[in-house]
Amino acid sequence: MSNDLNATHDPNLRSWVETANVAGCDFPIQNLPFGRFRPAGSNEPFRIGVAIGDRVLDLEAAHVLEHSDMNLVMSASPAERAALRALLSEDLREGSPRQNHWELALYAQADVEMALPCTIGDYTDFYTGIHHATTVGKLFRPDQPLMPNYKWVPIGYHGRASSIGVSGQRFKRPHGQTKAPDAEAPSFGPSKRLDYELELGFFIGEGNAQGEPIGIAKAEQHLFGVTLLNDWSARDLQAWEYQPLGPFLSKNFATTLSPWLVTMEALAPFRARSFDRPAGDPLPLPYLDSDVNRHTGGLDITLEVWLQTPKMRDAGVPATRLTRSNAAQAAYWTAAQLVAHHTVNGCNLQPGDLLGSGTLSGPEPDQAGSLLELTLGGKNPVALPNGERRTFLEDGDTLTLRGYCERKGAVRIGLGEVSGTVF
Amino acid sequence: MSNDLNATHDPNLRSWVETANVAGCDFPIQNLPFGRFRPAGSNEPFRIGVAIGDRVLDLEAAHVLEHSDMNLVMSASPAERAALRALLSEDLREGSPRQNHWELALYAQADVEMALPCTIGDYTDFYTGIHHATTVGKLFRPDQPLMPNYKWVPIGYHGRASSIGVSGQRFKRPHGQTKAPDAEAPSFGPSKRLDYELELGFFIGEGNAQGEPIGIAKAEQHLFGVTLLNDWSARDLQAWEYQPLGPFLSKNFATTLSPWLVTMEALAPFRARSFDRPAGDPLPLPYLDSDVNRHTGGLDITLEVWLQTPKMRDAGVPATRLTRSNAAQAAYWTAAQLVAHHTVNGCNLQPGDLLGSGTLSGPEPDQAGSLLELTLGGKNPVALPNGERRTFLEDGDTLTLRGYCERKGAVRIGLGEVSGTVF
Repeated sequence: MSNDLNATHDPNLRSWVETANVAGCDFPIQNLPFGRFRPAGSNEPFRIGVAIGDRVLDLEAAHVLEHSDMNLVMSASPAERAALRALLSEDLREGSPRQNHWELALYAQADVEMALPCTIGDYTDFYTGIHHATTVGKLFRPDQPLMPNYKWVPIGYHGRASSIGVSGQRFKRPHGQTKAPDAEAPSFGPSKRLDYELELGFFIGEGNAQGEPIGIAKAEQHLFGVTLLNDWSARDLQAWEYQPLGPFLSKNFATTLSPWLVTMEALAPFRARSFDRPAGDPLPLPYLDSDVNRHTGGLDITLEVWLQTPKMRDAGVPATRLTRSNAAQAAYWTAAQLVAHHTVNGCNLQPGDLLGSGTLSGPEPDQAGSLLELTLGGKNPVALPNGERRTFLEDGDTLTLRGYCERKGAVRIGLGEVSGTVF
Repeated sequence: MSNDLNATHDPNLRSWVETANVAGCDFPIQNLPFGRFRPAGSNEPFRIGVAIGDRVLDLEAAHVLEHSDMNLVMSASPAERAALRALLSEDLREGSPRQNHWELALYAQADVEMALPCTIGDYTDFYTGIHHATTVGKLFRPDQPLMPNYKWVPIGYHGRASSIGVSGQRFKRPHGQTKAPDAEAPSFGPSKRLDYELELGFFIGEGNAQGEPIGIAKAEQHLFGVTLLNDWSARDLQAWEYQPLGPFLSKNFATTLSPWLVTMEALAPFRARSFDRPAGDPLPLPYLDSDVNRHTGGLDITLEVWLQTPKMRDAGVPATRLTRSNAAQAAYWTAAQLVAHHTVNGCNLQPGDLLGSGTLSGPEPDQAGSLLELTLGGKNPVALPNGERRTFLEDGDTLTLRGYCERKGAVRIGLGEVSGTVF
């Protein structure tokens, strides 16, 4: 089985879907991410597809699956998942006898509408970006930017599943309570400090029974794959509400995901060392530590943030890049450590549960994954190519996250993109 | 329609199910709570039932419903809900022509197994118990027990839905990181400060669309009903992990609910003034305030906590009551205010979503809804009738919450009970 999986990464593989063979494509035959789609404008139920080049393969029409329940696909064992990946890889290759049949099951991505990749039961957002935690901590708590627990506990909190949407999500600017430091009482109104957060979303495959923790050695087997995640945040609401139980209305009005779930198998060539702890940092406690995790727990994914304002859109100015960072260099804790930590108390994870990475800012100021960081709390506006400036998001702004993996000797794997617009 | 509803509260109503007419019964014909059940020991799918006396009426077998989807029942409009209640009340009354048919759809509660009353999408836990917040705040932050936001913001945070279980839940003592104040580093092991929390669970009926807040005037219409909720808490894990993003593993290993969902309609005779704010407290902001809410936003529900240790069980010593409090006197914010606050930023609630009240401790020390409060952080053990003492829960302890409404001129309405055992 592992031989089959290795074969699916072979850089020489070419697909009979020609657009999958174009250099720089997000979805070559080495990727094979899952999503849920239907013909744009139709009312058909969403069904499971695999992205290949600029097409989607309908897995039911291709007789690969007999259902459209992505959570069921995700609950499969690692061996079953590997077999499915091997089958898709073989039959999408140049020369496959299945080409004639499967061509009838292809849609142009431009012609389909995407849903969230699966039903999300519980959503947990972590806080693994140590550069983010440090910079933001300085703004909220100048005397103690990183809490004493940060290097011991993978800090996380529960998020809201109902308001998670797929790329293209448009949401109203949230209203709520805010209080200026010098004001006697809070006031109510629209958020004036609306921000994004650059995150990865890790999806759980096989779950665990309540009371049965997942050890660090098996944690990777319970990860199904990865999307981009934008954790929209109303900073002024957050500052007033977050003590003592954490962020609530400042985060739960909307969260946006990219539509294509890139599997852990597809990311295998892009594994990296876990975060290099500086001298003096404690070793992880044994339940969070393993050789494999140290050597390959990280994900070498390049992440980018792009912004287009309404004025830019009207003038035909393309989106401008605000940030580029790298997941492996940003995250103090690996996805496997998040799974081990989340379940060590007996908490049960279920197929389709979502774990957010937290904001993945790099160590340099221009690698920051939020406006809060880029503008130092709104003090230093970002200059845009058309002369506009931004401290926080304004109505009509469209924010796009992109992610991709590039390494010598491997074919580029893209995560696609996630866009969202506030109005 | 309102006439029909008033008629369902008539204290003179008697049911042809004789046990429903016994004084002190939790489930008289004025109650009619919903639950999901199946014959004990069977593998049948759970179906929707209504508790009446010591029986359960199977709503599908009685031809009242044609499905077993409780969330669908909960999504009905207030008028549809009132009609269903009126129908159940009329046909369970003495002299109903339906008696002969419906007797065939009855099960003894002793012979059935209960599930959670519905599928819970998102679970939010609030912190409305001001006496609890003050006492606990003193333990965690002696200099500032109540945060400056407490009397302005109904503080809440997202909880974990997957680990919520129904009365009878047994769970393993959670393991995790704890750190003694004087220790250099945290250590890993079983929680030594395992606690319960006495809460109500409010269930959402009709939901709202994302971006469309529910105003305070309409908030009650979106509440379907109430259960008892035990928010098990590992205090030592909580103290180490909760900053800056709130409680996580200290809460999400298990949460237990009573099986019978008592509707807001059944509770109508037991509405009370909302919390009497002491002089000097601010008025709620307009989006949280209404005359109706001030006058009838509260719930006059008596709440009790009972404990039975393994030694008591073995010796035939019945459970002993640790606490008695009252929801209306404990909660600074009403359920309607929680709904208005939760959605004011555009967050969407869905049928079956659960809002926890937070720990409903009364103002007196013996009205405390957790051991953390009763024992002043573990310093003053509670003495049990068999000579044992408890600071926190020990293995095998069974904790039971009970709730009921009693008022002159109205028939007693019970919430039943929720039990859980740590092992």
